[in-house]
Amino acid sequence: MSMTERRGLFITFEGLDGSGKSTQMDLLARRLAAEGHPALVTVEPGGTRIGAQIRRILLDAENHALAHTAELLLYFASRAQNVEETILPALCRNEIVICDRFTDSTLAYQSFGRGLGEPVVAALHRIACGDLTPDLTVFLDIDLETSLRRARDRNRNLDAASAGQTRMDEQSAAFYERVRDGYLTLARREPGRFRPIDGRGDIERIASRIWQAVEPAVSGIHA
Amino acid sequence: MSMTERRGLFITFEGLDGSGKSTQMDLLARRLAAEGHPALVTVEPGGTRIGAQIRRILLDAENHALAHTAELLLYFASRAQNVEETILPALCRNEIVICDRFTDSTLAYQSFGRGLGEPVVAALHRIACGDLTPDLTVFLDIDLETSLRRARDRNRNLDAASAGQTRMDEQSAAFYERVRDGYLTLARREPGRFRPIDGRGDIERIASRIWQAVEPAVSGIHA
Repeated sequence: MSMTERRGLFITFEGLDGSGKSTQMDLLARRLAAEGHPALVTVEPGGTRIGAQIRRILLDAENHALAHTAELLLYFASRAQNVEETILPALCRNEIVICDRFTDSTLAYQSFGRGLGEPVVAALHRIACGDLTPDLTVFLDIDLETSLRRARDRNRNLDAASAGQTRMDEQSAAFYERVRDGYLTLARREPGRFRPIDGRGDIERIASRIWQAVEPAVSGIHA
Repeated sequence: MSMTERRGLFITFEGLDGSGKSTQMDLLARRLAAEGHPALVTVEPGGTRIGAQIRRILLDAENHALAHTAELLLYFASRAQNVEETILPALCRNEIVICDRFTDSTLAYQSFGRGLGEPVVAALHRIACGDLTPDLTVFLDIDLETSLRRARDRNRNLDAASAGQTRMDEQSAAFYERVRDGYLTLARREPGRFRPIDGRGDIERIASRIWQAVEPAVSGIHA
């Protein structure tokens, strides 16, 4: 399937864990449906049967030996599968796709966070996703304290076996600071696509700010 | 770990399924050990705990929706993990490593077999393996009929549940013909490294031809 045929609207959500991505994606999907624009909601890594198997490798706390390059290749393997199997076919049917994380996450976490070169990420994006770039990226920005507090609250609600046991939770505060700075750098580079929205405060007010950013693009595609 | 520090000897085995790679790798490892050069034997995809998880995704017959690009990225994820965790540390300790399949398999199966561009494979090799290239590649060449007959014989010895159930067995004869031609092209390109050896006939005679190719390199490293 050629990328050039694609229309539709590709919206991604980015942000630190605890930034409210899931909540706001659900609210946006509901609002879109209510306005007559049902959207396909997906997630990276994961999103497909095969992506779910890759996600299990990435999040398995036993896999502490996972090499940074192998991790990077696994993220893009999941993404390549999701693009070909789900995202691109939906866009070619002129649908709206909302994806929880995409290549901006890889840039923020692996390049800015871990120092893996941006050219390597760009080369892998090209191989895995061709020229598919989100039309709109909602970046829910929260400070590090809010991210850590919300992650702790969430873990408290999980059973003891899974609380705080994923590999991602083992990172340091300095790492997450670099990730957040990375997101802010990406936002400065592409102000048209990348929309930072304050992720703290009232959920409904945040949802309404997101709707203000999304609505003009939606009326465009289904005009 | 820098690739430039590496010494040791990196030997890979290539060939169609049924070409006798496993048998000949075992015989070579035993011969090397008998001569005082114990070798580390590994396999691609697989080779590490994480690689084994990736291998299960690749060989799962249920994963018929696996996209070609996702498959390619999974092969290199397994390889990146194996290089960093096992192969490169062993070579840096000046050991001999024997690996069942490496990037030549990806070139033969994905590029020559499926038409995925060689530059993409070369870019992924660079990301996953840096400048690590085998010192010696034993290519066990068999004709297609021998490959199919041996694969059938092997399947007959497996239980019904697993016989012929892997994704790889679902390929056509024309595909395997392209793979074999691909291997022969690689052999012509790098005659110093890539040693085609007739994989038909007496097992001991084949082992002795392999030893003739390997022995000079072995005496070199542990001189």
